[in-house]
Amino acid sequence: MTGNELLCGLYTDRYQLAMALAYWRCGRAEEEAVFDYFFRSAPFGGGYAVFAGLGPLVEALGHFRFGEADLAFLRKDGFPDEFLDYLRDFVFRGSVWAPPEGEIVFPYEPVLSVAGGLLEAQIIETLVLNLLNFQSLVATKASRCRRAAGRRVLSEFGLRRAQGSGGMWASRAACVGGCDNTSNLAAARAFGLEAAGTMAHSFIQSYDSELEAFRDFARIHGSSTVLLLDTYDTLRSGVPNAIQVAREMESRGERLKGVRLDSGDLAYLSRKVRAALDEAGLREVVILASNQVDEHVIRSLSEQDDRIDGFGIGTSLVTGVPDGALDGVYKLAETGGKPRLKASETIAKTTLPGHKTVYRMEDADGMAMADVVCLAEEPVPDRMVHPFEPHMRLGLANWRARPLRGEVVRGGRPAGQVPSAAEASVRARRALDRIPPEHLRFDNPHTYKVGLSVRLRDLRDTLLADKRKDAAS
Amino acid sequence: MTGNELLCGLYTDRYQLAMALAYWRCGRAEEEAVFDYFFRSAPFGGGYAVFAGLGPLVEALGHFRFGEADLAFLRKDGFPDEFLDYLRDFVFRGSVWAPPEGEIVFPYEPVLSVAGGLLEAQIIETLVLNLLNFQSLVATKASRCRRAAGRRVLSEFGLRRAQGSGGMWASRAACVGGCDNTSNLAAARAFGLEAAGTMAHSFIQSYDSELEAFRDFARIHGSSTVLLLDTYDTLRSGVPNAIQVAREMESRGERLKGVRLDSGDLAYLSRKVRAALDEAGLREVVILASNQVDEHVIRSLSEQDDRIDGFGIGTSLVTGVPDGALDGVYKLAETGGKPRLKASETIAKTTLPGHKTVYRMEDADGMAMADVVCLAEEPVPDRMVHPFEPHMRLGLANWRARPLRGEVVRGGRPAGQVPSAAEASVRARRALDRIPPEHLRFDNPHTYKVGLSVRLRDLRDTLLADKRKDAAS
Repeated sequence: MTGNELLCGLYTDRYQLAMALAYWRCGRAEEEAVFDYFFRSAPFGGGYAVFAGLGPLVEALGHFRFGEADLAFLRKDGFPDEFLDYLRDFVFRGSVWAPPEGEIVFPYEPVLSVAGGLLEAQIIETLVLNLLNFQSLVATKASRCRRAAGRRVLSEFGLRRAQGSGGMWASRAACVGGCDNTSNLAAARAFGLEAAGTMAHSFIQSYDSELEAFRDFARIHGSSTVLLLDTYDTLRSGVPNAIQVAREMESRGERLKGVRLDSGDLAYLSRKVRAALDEAGLREVVILASNQVDEHVIRSLSEQDDRIDGFGIGTSLVTGVPDGALDGVYKLAETGGKPRLKASETIAKTTLPGHKTVYRMEDADGMAMADVVCLAEEPVPDRMVHPFEPHMRLGLANWRARPLRGEVVRGGRPAGQVPSAAEASVRARRALDRIPPEHLRFDNPHTYKVGLSVRLRDLRDTLLADKRKDAAS
Repeated sequence: MTGNELLCGLYTDRYQLAMALAYWRCGRAEEEAVFDYFFRSAPFGGGYAVFAGLGPLVEALGHFRFGEADLAFLRKDGFPDEFLDYLRDFVFRGSVWAPPEGEIVFPYEPVLSVAGGLLEAQIIETLVLNLLNFQSLVATKASRCRRAAGRRVLSEFGLRRAQGSGGMWASRAACVGGCDNTSNLAAARAFGLEAAGTMAHSFIQSYDSELEAFRDFARIHGSSTVLLLDTYDTLRSGVPNAIQVAREMESRGERLKGVRLDSGDLAYLSRKVRAALDEAGLREVVILASNQVDEHVIRSLSEQDDRIDGFGIGTSLVTGVPDGALDGVYKLAETGGKPRLKASETIAKTTLPGHKTVYRMEDADGMAMADVVCLAEEPVPDRMVHPFEPHMRLGLANWRARPLRGEVVRGGRPAGQVPSAAEASVRARRALDRIPPEHLRFDNPHTYKVGLSVRLRDLRDTLLADKRKDAAS
């Protein structure tokens, strides 16, 4: 089970089906439409997001069906039988364009677009948003933790605080974004991730003495043993007992793998524990740490010269606090052959009309310089304009254009191999290396330039002027 | 599908099975043990939590199994075959004590306790935490929104920003805590909730004119029509078009049900829209509002004399921001007939040993005055002491004691009817009426008193002194 089993046709907001009924009654179900998925601000006050959730989305689109129990529920809810007959045979047959999973993406660009019949492209909205918003949020958090942690081991430990079975996708997205492994066995199995885990306080509590508990655990788990030090007193009890057990293990030809700190001042304790282990000749025993770790804690620990070799990250990673959500939206861009927009009080919140594409402009070293959004039928633009600052423009002629997105679903079916978490993870690490570091820093990141072609900007402004004229008339 | 289908034996942290292996090898799997679930601070800076997730937990415990694919995964991960044979036949046979779902609970009290074999009670930890922490968080947020909204309609709209399929339980918990309905059709079907929904901007955008879009929608949906006003310009376009369509509906014997605002200044716009509707003789048309609503926004709108009849609440509700998680933990309290504790630098973080129970002390009107935690074998205490402020004590003799918890699982099976979301929702509303309001307010709530019996306090302090002596020796 991956979590995708839940994603039946009812895994949607009721209004999607209310609109679908209207489209169907009015004979517009098959009218060609294009929707865009994008977000307006990067999470965590940062400058970028790691695009994640594409694999599960592609798979879910292939399985999106209304079963008999779903239809019975809708009948009770007042939907007419003829429409339910239509839904009974419903299969998504549209196309989807997206970057490869793990790519780095930025605010205001159409990260993903869906083209298909108006009805089918509408009713998958909730699914698209539910899968991409959350997984991109968690992958981005993991990426930030990875940047703070350097080459140290990062383990995702969050299932107990995860938001229900969203924890399945949280574990996957964490590994896409930068974690090495997860404590979540179900996710490890479903998505081919590495599983990791040590011991809990309860194990030690269940014995009359900590030493006895350490001994039993080491006897069973041999050289993969990691001992938790803080059940009673880290320095006065945990460390001496761990050293004693490590020596007993050595006499059996085994080696203690590590120790874990789960409370107290992690920087101070890690230095003390390192010194005690080193003094006992246990230089290869690693120190792991958990307890409310996030990217800011890791950075602060590094500044304090901690001696931690790996982190377990739980709550903050799987719930994506403080944001809790990526603000991604799914907006109609074209239907019936006409470009469409949603007006707003501010031009920044007005959507971009038409069937579009995105190019990433790269310098000779392959570093990303800017992304330009243009109409799909345009040639690669040689300059771009800021989406809502009319006087900001940028020449693109010196850079090479790489299409940011490819067709990942065609006629409802995967257009290639559905990406695995492992592939997406490699992609995410490589993609970050091609983004100039000033866009990646935690504090006041430099805004990465995302612009529009002049044709796209003109199309938007013309449509907007028409809408304003209508409203005023 | 309810989400429980995901909860196979692997829906756990790897360390649970590493410990389980050690218990099994050491012949301790069946040793009697007691674990407590509790949290240390109420979410959202408030004074209470709504206990939710019990129905799904009781159901999940009954289904907790290791399938062949799970066992094959564990074999690859290094677990020995004899242990996998043990897991193949594993069934949870323990007992669980808990309050009814929807009850109001407080920090530091053992909300739920599990008694059973050491192994079985350990490996369900992740499941217990995953289900109760998240659902209690969301139910508490919904309860706060309900308190702010009074009798106005509250709809949960969050699936698109929910954390993956955790959105299923988010919708259930939201309705337990205080929402009237949900947009999430899959959750409505699975948990017997009311489904609700209107229309999206895309519906209106898909037409050349807003008026035409409103007309088509009203033609299909008749008197259940709710029109979204802000696609182009709420006051200059949305309102006059809605009024025109409402009049056309009246001429057909139908009635426009409502309008929805999704952007802009909701207080100002609601007053303007109300005035326009009233002037057009449309006093019964309700005004709904969405867009980043939470309990604080609702309260602020009320202070501004808004005219909103119902709210759609999304992101903040289903992700429980700003907290993102309830900090509930699951701690060993007894095993092998001996009470156990986890020591900590502070007495506040030291756990409570032994098999315990909780009484809610009520005055003659049934109002909750204090909760007292004591050992299960004690009679109802006539006084209690503060858990970590030694000089604070309270006489209980004038109040009536009501057991807060009952046995909800016995020998692995539900000890009664598994509570439905609807029952839990009624319970939550009634339970709140029995908590003095000073504990419920948003700002600086008065701390509800949770104390210990003298015997329990003494047991803890004696065990703690012993542990400190061990560590020092």
